[in-house]
Amino acid sequence: MRKSAADRFRHLFNRSLVTYHNQTIHHRINPIPFRSSSSMASNSSPFPVTAQNINPQVLKCQYAVRGEIVTLAQNLQKDLLANPDAHSFDEIIYCNIGNPQSLGQQPITFFREVLALCDYPALLDKSETQGLFSADSIERAWQIVDQIPGRATGAYSHSQGIQGLRETIAAGIGERDGFPANPNDIFLTDGASPAVHMMMQLLTRSENDGILCPIPQYPLYSASITLHGGHLVPYYLDEESGWGLEISELKKQLEDARSKGISVRALVVINPGNPTGQVLAEENQRDIVEFCKKEGLVLLADEVYQENIYAPEKKFHSFKKVSRSMGYGDDDITLVSFQSVSKGYHGECGKRGGYMEVTGFSPDVREQVYKVASVNLCANITGQILASLIMSPPKVGDESYESFMAERGGILSSLAKRAKALEDALNNLEGVTCNKAEGAMYLFPRIRLPEKAIKAAEAEKSAPDAFYCKRLLNATGIVVVPGSGFGQVPGTWHFRCTILPQEDRIPAIVTRLTEFHEKFMNEFRD
Amino acid sequence: MRKSAADRFRHLFNRSLVTYHNQTIHHRINPIPFRSSSSMASNSSPFPVTAQNINPQVLKCQYAVRGEIVTLAQNLQKDLLANPDAHSFDEIIYCNIGNPQSLGQQPITFFREVLALCDYPALLDKSETQGLFSADSIERAWQIVDQIPGRATGAYSHSQGIQGLRETIAAGIGERDGFPANPNDIFLTDGASPAVHMMMQLLTRSENDGILCPIPQYPLYSASITLHGGHLVPYYLDEESGWGLEISELKKQLEDARSKGISVRALVVINPGNPTGQVLAEENQRDIVEFCKKEGLVLLADEVYQENIYAPEKKFHSFKKVSRSMGYGDDDITLVSFQSVSKGYHGECGKRGGYMEVTGFSPDVREQVYKVASVNLCANITGQILASLIMSPPKVGDESYESFMAERGGILSSLAKRAKALEDALNNLEGVTCNKAEGAMYLFPRIRLPEKAIKAAEAEKSAPDAFYCKRLLNATGIVVVPGSGFGQVPGTWHFRCTILPQEDRIPAIVTRLTEFHEKFMNEFRD
Repeated sequence: MRKSAADRFRHLFNRSLVTYHNQTIHHRINPIPFRSSSSMASNSSPFPVTAQNINPQVLKCQYAVRGEIVTLAQNLQKDLLANPDAHSFDEIIYCNIGNPQSLGQQPITFFREVLALCDYPALLDKSETQGLFSADSIERAWQIVDQIPGRATGAYSHSQGIQGLRETIAAGIGERDGFPANPNDIFLTDGASPAVHMMMQLLTRSENDGILCPIPQYPLYSASITLHGGHLVPYYLDEESGWGLEISELKKQLEDARSKGISVRALVVINPGNPTGQVLAEENQRDIVEFCKKEGLVLLADEVYQENIYAPEKKFHSFKKVSRSMGYGDDDITLVSFQSVSKGYHGECGKRGGYMEVTGFSPDVREQVYKVASVNLCANITGQILASLIMSPPKVGDESYESFMAERGGILSSLAKRAKALEDALNNLEGVTCNKAEGAMYLFPRIRLPEKAIKAAEAEKSAPDAFYCKRLLNATGIVVVPGSGFGQVPGTWHFRCTILPQEDRIPAIVTRLTEFHEKFMNEFRD
Repeated sequence: MRKSAADRFRHLFNRSLVTYHNQTIHHRINPIPFRSSSSMASNSSPFPVTAQNINPQVLKCQYAVRGEIVTLAQNLQKDLLANPDAHSFDEIIYCNIGNPQSLGQQPITFFREVLALCDYPALLDKSETQGLFSADSIERAWQIVDQIPGRATGAYSHSQGIQGLRETIAAGIGERDGFPANPNDIFLTDGASPAVHMMMQLLTRSENDGILCPIPQYPLYSASITLHGGHLVPYYLDEESGWGLEISELKKQLEDARSKGISVRALVVINPGNPTGQVLAEENQRDIVEFCKKEGLVLLADEVYQENIYAPEKKFHSFKKVSRSMGYGDDDITLVSFQSVSKGYHGECGKRGGYMEVTGFSPDVREQVYKVASVNLCANITGQILASLIMSPPKVGDESYESFMAERGGILSSLAKRAKALEDALNNLEGVTCNKAEGAMYLFPRIRLPEKAIKAAEAEKSAPDAFYCKRLLNATGIVVVPGSGFGQVPGTWHFRCTILPQEDRIPAIVTRLTEFHEKFMNEFRD
């Protein structure tokens, strides 16, 4: 049984992932206790569904951000409640996931005012509302409910999203880029994840269809490609040059994949990078656009961190803007840009809002995208409204403008400070180097683990970076994700740590991390 | 090109669907105008992605509820604005989809109060709030935000949903059934559709895996099975006996599928029925449970219309209650029950809330379900909150109780009246017979079309029922969905019409429908 389960885990993209993840999953599939069941049709288990007879793509798929380490953390959290004295820390600090509000970030007031008014439009007719809500939130809520047919904020919308909201979003994109956007190109989705799944589903016919993905990557991509039965074609970001994206590497990997009979359909670029935090230079982006055009690849641009730029010399440029500024239109480049309400300064993860802007698809393929969207009816309206708000926040002269800018600025400048403090602390650790987080919400330090630690990890059937992260968790309550969950150059080890704990917590985290690392190195130093 | 596109549309489950849908889809895929593009790698189209090189399962999938007829209706709606005098009606009436609030149904006040307070929890601290909101909505909102770690209503939750809300839902299920439910069995989802997709994805390994589905069925099931590459094994509901579900038919179809090498994994039962409106008798449900247990099938129970019962002699019994009352526990029957905030008396479609209660899976498979849920992070929090509210509405003694009961009762009794009025009107039409809507939101009349009409439809390369529905739309503005989109006994023709237009609109709809039908029959009578 163990062997047959293991047999299913083939063709993973990164040797380090294959080697260590197999063992991890393997370990987690408990053999099912045998119970006879005469009534069951050809099955020796009491359950008709077992890990041996489900979709092998589901078994194979991995999502480390909420994987084994988080399960361990949740168990530890329970234990902490039951036996507070058994641990040297009094809480679990979740640095595994970009979930700002779970770590105390406050929502943007204007956004929440508008959402509340749209949820309960009866408030709009009451005089007391004036005292409770800003004038522009009331005005905006009126605009939005008027854009919804019958003012029905509880009805399914058009499967691409409410037309008026798509117009607002398109206008926001136009303002951002200096090039117009078409509301009919916008598909509102429950966060960016379902949009990514939709594209993978559309493009993947068989395991011979490949998607070029950065390594390290955000594991939604590897998970989605696996679930849809496709092939992840890796291209490595260059850690030495601050996680640079080299066209020569893209070419090499594309040719290599093609020589193996893989039909490469698309290139995923995450900008700003997740987990790597780099912000692409415009020149680099032009080369990427040219590459996709020449090679007939769909450019899947994950731009959900577009507001999260911390390096003063860096600026976000959307791939749409870059390609249009090169004179390329719908007929020249097929481009999908993903945006989310979960990230940015707003961090409204739980609202599950987002959109994709889909350009350069033929009308018949667009119709297929629409059809798949229609099977799921529509994205949730609260998320739709929020997606329109982040692309059209308060403007100069609006009552909320100043408080909005103060909230926004406070969050972004604090994130920049936190990123720097954690980066410096990591670079002070023995054997650790950490590139700057120019953008996004993460640091992805490299840890040079002593041979003794690697052997100890092997003895525990754990990847060395997972071994380190589990030790860190047990010693400090800090949850970070092993680099093997994102992919890395074989033989190198990393972890991803968010920059999201509130500022006043950073010094304690740095102390705990530093103390742990010293002890770890003392234990395992070769 | 046309031939190769058509070649992909094989193995559809119902001959009438195969014959007519092929032509419909076929018709909609426009050949792409040839443009040379020397830079493109091995592709004669300017677009790297065409209908010829996308996932054939996407191409093949159909979802009639938002299909061709709705596209026609939307175009007609635009034309109605531009040329109001060119039509004998002044609006489009969407009876194609169960979307109550789009047709004027008002949301339940208590639910919206709670949602607004949770969206903008700062309101909870203000004195003016007392004057604007009911006391129990404020109390409930406090309870809910206190159940959310850090009161962060904008954070990703646990991937199964917020623990406290799952506890509320489990308690609601326990109260409904008289048997306890476990919060750990609840997976909150963005409406019921993603939950159905998750199960199809889990159970389908290849096209040799089959799912028993009623015919007629809600086309989410056929679409999801197609998208996941599985095989729909049909069982026919008996129209003569009010869409009865016969165990002998299940057995026959199961054996037939098995004899063809299909491994049948699950049985879908929709109760109350969609599009058919029948409510299953408890005795019948026991036989279904026994059948699934004996044959080792997962019972996928679509119970989203559990509050929509109109026949006074009928009562909803959940399959969980039925199986537990037979003495069957987790080890005896694998059962998934789907529930949604979109239906019932609340009809909160746009909020995308729902859950599945997953029982009788082995722990290792449960872990896989959790993993897939975690890749999508979590369901939207607004929908999660609403799902907890519908399973725990105001109780006797709460300030909102009486107004809540009045709103709820008003909606449900009006739906019963509308169902009856439309059913009577349909039964008065020449050649039309319509079973009672005992529950759910639809009527599914059978229309006996004259041979001349069938020939005229063939000439237009349209299914005869689609031909009728398009004629109806063009003559009256009423949008209904052809029976071929749901499946039907070959050679019979139906359409699905919701009972959702507001009561005062029903007489005009009946008049328009009756006049149209008379003219249609006069034109085509053999």
